[in-house]
Amino acid sequence: MAWFFSKSSDEGIVLTSRIRLARNIDGVPFPHILDKDSAKKVVEDVTSAILDSNSAISKDFDVINLKDITLNERMSLVEKHLISKDLINRSDISAVMINKQKNVSIMINEEDHIRLQVIYPGFKLKEAYELASKIDDLIEERITYSYDTRLGYLTSCPTNVGTGLRASVMLHLPALTITKNINNIINTINQVGLTIRGLYGEGSNALGNVYQISNQITLGLSEEEIINNLIAVTNKIVEKEKKAREMLLEKQSVELEDELYRALGILKYARSISTQESLELISKVRMGVEMGIIKDVNVDKLNELFVNVQPATLQLLEKRDLSPKDRDIVRARLIREKLN
Amino acid sequence: MAWFFSKSSDEGIVLTSRIRLARNIDGVPFPHILDKDSAKKVVEDVTSAILDSNSAISKDFDVINLKDITLNERMSLVEKHLISKDLINRSDISAVMINKQKNVSIMINEEDHIRLQVIYPGFKLKEAYELASKIDDLIEERITYSYDTRLGYLTSCPTNVGTGLRASVMLHLPALTITKNINNIINTINQVGLTIRGLYGEGSNALGNVYQISNQITLGLSEEEIINNLIAVTNKIVEKEKKAREMLLEKQSVELEDELYRALGILKYARSISTQESLELISKVRMGVEMGIIKDVNVDKLNELFVNVQPATLQLLEKRDLSPKDRDIVRARLIREKLN
Repeated sequence: MAWFFSKSSDEGIVLTSRIRLARNIDGVPFPHILDKDSAKKVVEDVTSAILDSNSAISKDFDVINLKDITLNERMSLVEKHLISKDLINRSDISAVMINKQKNVSIMINEEDHIRLQVIYPGFKLKEAYELASKIDDLIEERITYSYDTRLGYLTSCPTNVGTGLRASVMLHLPALTITKNINNIINTINQVGLTIRGLYGEGSNALGNVYQISNQITLGLSEEEIINNLIAVTNKIVEKEKKAREMLLEKQSVELEDELYRALGILKYARSISTQESLELISKVRMGVEMGIIKDVNVDKLNELFVNVQPATLQLLEKRDLSPKDRDIVRARLIREKLN
Repeated sequence: MAWFFSKSSDEGIVLTSRIRLARNIDGVPFPHILDKDSAKKVVEDVTSAILDSNSAISKDFDVINLKDITLNERMSLVEKHLISKDLINRSDISAVMINKQKNVSIMINEEDHIRLQVIYPGFKLKEAYELASKIDDLIEERITYSYDTRLGYLTSCPTNVGTGLRASVMLHLPALTITKNINNIINTINQVGLTIRGLYGEGSNALGNVYQISNQITLGLSEEEIINNLIAVTNKIVEKEKKAREMLLEKQSVELEDELYRALGILKYARSISTQESLELISKVRMGVEMGIIKDVNVDKLNELFVNVQPATLQLLEKRDLSPKDRDIVRARLIREKLN
C-alpha cells in the first residue's frame, strides 16, 4: 500500500498518479472468448516473461492466481486499487503479479491479456510512465504483442486501441465539493478529452471527496501528449481546490472549523460507522489538517484509515468474516484506536 | 446553584424537588394593581420580616432589587430557576431574597406579594416543604397573610387559592423520550391532578429531556396530600424511566452506545453549538454515564454545564455581552474546557 500510505505533495491534493497499459498477445483470442487451457498458457507466458527475465525487477514479483485466494482477499486488492472488479469476474482464469512495493500490478486475463499498472503516491505521472514502459519492454522481450502499424496496440475494447494507455490521477477535492464548484469542473473536463469518476472508477460515487481523472482518448495522441494534457488539467484543478480552501478559510472559518472538528469528534467517539460516513469524515479531517485548522492529527494515519476502513480490507485485518453490522462496529473501533 | 450542582439520588433521574408557597399581605392590593410606593413598602415589610427576625436563617439572605441588576443577571437567575420571568416583567417594583446556599428564594411582588421557593437536589419534597414552612412561619410572625377560613390563602390567580402550594419535581427522562413512552405519561398525568412541563415551566419545551411535574390543584387537598400524591406519581415515572433504560440496554445496545458516544464526541470537538443542541447532547451523555455505558465523564461537570451553557449565564461567566453567533462559539469552548 506504499502508494496510499506515503505522504504526497501538493498539500495532499494529488493522492496518486497511475499509468495503465493494455496489451494483448498476438494470435491469441481475447480473454472473454478464451478457453481455459489457452487462458492458463497466457498466465504462464506472461508470468515467465517477468520471472525468467534477467532484470532485477523480476525478483520483486509475486504471482497470485485469483482462484487461489478468498473473495475477501480479492475484494481487498480492489479496495487497494491493485486489481479491478473485472479481474474478479474472471477468477477461474485470471491472475495478477504484484511487486513487493505494491506499486506495480500486472493483471492477466482481465479484459485484455495484460493490464500493466504502475501507481505512485503524489503527482508523479511521468515517473509512473517510465517504470511502466520499462516493464512493458521487459514483457515484450519474450511476448509478441498484438499490434497494428496504423492503429497501434489492439485491445479487446475499441476505447483502448492505440496507445492502450490510461493515465489517471486520484484527487482529494473536499473544498471544491463543499463549495459545489466541482460541478463546473465535471462539466468542463469532458470537453478536453478527459473523464472524471469516483474513488472506484466508472459509475462509482466520489466517496470521501476523492475523484479520479483520466484520459478518455487512447487513439490519435502520443503517450506524451496524453500525459502532458492530464498534467496540465490536474495543475489547474489543484489550483482551484487551493483557491476554494482559501475562500472557505476567509469566508466562514467558524462554521468550517466546527464542521471539520465535529467530523474528528465523531470519528474518535462513534461506536458504529459505515464505510461511506467514515470516508466522508476522514476526508474532512484530512482537509482540516492540510489547511492547518486541525492540529495534532497525523495525516498518514488518516490515509491508512482511508483504505483500512473498507469492507474487505477491514475483514482481512480482523482475520474473520463479519456481518455488515459487525463491520460497522469493528470499523469504529479501528478508527478510535488509530486516532486516540 | 447548590441544587443543580449536587449529586442527586435515584440514578440522577430526579434532578430537583421544589416547593413554592404563594402568599399575600392582608389589606394590600395584589401586585398588578399596586402603586409604586405601596409596592416599595411590600418589599420593605417582607425583607425586614426575614432580616430582622431572631432566626439564624435571616443572616443567610441577600436582597436583590430587580431594577439594580442587568438584564443578563436577571435572565441568569431565571436560568438557575431562582426567579421567574414574571418577576422580571415587574422589575421596577420587584425584588428577590436569595440565601447563601441558593436553595431558598423569596420573590416579592411577582404575581403575588410573596412567592417563597425552596429547591433541593434529588428527591426531597418533604424536606423542601419543611424548610419552606419554617420560613413561612418566620414571615408570618411579622406579616398578616390574606387568608380566608373557608378557602385558605388568597392569591392573585384563582389557580393558587387554598394551600398556595406548588410542589414540583424536575425529572431527567431521556430513555422515556427516546422510546416515545413519554407521550403516554403526559396523557395520563393530567388525569391525576398533575401537570407536566418543559425545563422552563408552562409552554416551554423539554430541553435536554428535562420535565417538570407539579400539582395542578391547590384547593380541597391538604399540603400533605398534594406532596404525597406527587411523590407516588414520581416514583412510578422513575420506575418507568429505569425500565426504559434497561430495555434500551437490552434491545439495541450498539445503536444506543453509538448515539451516546457520538454526543460526547461532538461536545468535546464542536467549535460552535446552540443552547438547544448542547442541552440535548449533555442529556444523552448524562444518561450514558448513569447507565454505565460512558465511563470517565464526571456527572457533576455535566450538571454544571447544563446551567452554564444557557445564554445569560454564559454571558455572565464570560463577563461580556455576546452576539448569538459568538455565544455559540464561547459555549462550545466552555464545554470543551470542561470535558477535556
